[in-house]
Amino acid sequence: MPTPILVTFTASDAGSWTINHMTSVVGEGLPAATRLAVTEGAGLPTLADSAWSLSGMTSNLRYTHRSEAAALASIQEGLGRVQATRAALIPIRKSDAWWNLAQDDRRAIMEEQSRHIALGMEFLPAVARRLHHCRDIGGPFDFLTWFEYAPKDADRFEELVQALRRSPEWAFVDREVDIRLSRAG
Amino acid sequence: MPTPILVTFTASDAGSWTINHMTSVVGEGLPAATRLAVTEGAGLPTLADSAWSLSGMTSNLRYTHRSEAAALASIQEGLGRVQATRAALIPIRKSDAWWNLAQDDRRAIMEEQSRHIALGMEFLPAVARRLHHCRDIGGPFDFLTWFEYAPKDADRFEELVQALRRSPEWAFVDREVDIRLSRAG
Repeated sequence: MPTPILVTFTASDAGSWTINHMTSVVGEGLPAATRLAVTEGAGLPTLADSAWSLSGMTSNLRYTHRSEAAALASIQEGLGRVQATRAALIPIRKSDAWWNLAQDDRRAIMEEQSRHIALGMEFLPAVARRLHHCRDIGGPFDFLTWFEYAPKDADRFEELVQALRRSPEWAFVDREVDIRLSRAG
Repeated sequence: MPTPILVTFTASDAGSWTINHMTSVVGEGLPAATRLAVTEGAGLPTLADSAWSLSGMTSNLRYTHRSEAAALASIQEGLGRVQATRAALIPIRKSDAWWNLAQDDRRAIMEEQSRHIALGMEFLPAVARRLHHCRDIGGPFDFLTWFEYAPKDADRFEELVQALRRSPEWAFVDREVDIRLSRAG
């Protein structure tokens, strides 16, 4: 978990990912575009003709306990695997009711009630993830979650997403957009 | 705990707080100045001739449990009290070793070992505080802590600061500057 990295997702007609479809799950959607560019690092020029651009920071663990972090580290794989030609970008915003909760209440809803960490672990190493935080840097979402997987694991990824959306934690999600992508040929 | 607010502390020869002294506790200090301005909100013009400027975001609770949050809420007082004519701005950076810890390990060091929340509570309502996060928005520090108190409580505030500096949590602090101020007449 090194120094936070600023990651920017820019939708336009350029970028190494093709946007296959985009769904508004809860709340307002995002303008349509054909491609997505993922760039790391601050101070990058903004693409002039982008449909939208969302930035978030990788950060330290906010809820994960030591035993969970060790289990995750032993099994998860990184981004950029050759076979992982499918991706999902799922920007999420949580309600004020969530953010007004104390740390132990949020942890209890997220893990003891919703099994968010445990669920994600069941889909490792097939689904690689990276979480980007944006509540504290402004912008319309609180988190940008990025997933990469092989086409053969697409159904399993769907299972993970549906299980999370049925969890008590998701009652606090008041905006969610689901963007599915494939690596541009 | 409403939407995060961006707060900027700018040291120059203008501002409503007089800088009485500034100490480098650990690591590099900050350039000298006579006054400090505290401004809230994004998009404010930067003062041209400032010695330095540090920004941070108020945010949700990161470690505080529900029972602690309720106890704090019942006793703490807000910023801007008429009698609170003394203030301290203490920018802090923590080491990579801290940020690499899991959530439960950081909580254990901070509260179960260091009694950070309980200690702060002993000095309420005399010392009002606000914590600003800046690790995820870049800049040289991870936190900007702001305290306000009456002159008669200056010795008690000193006790609090010294107790925290002796705690196990402080072994992870690798840069700390201590700036003491009084409201400009």
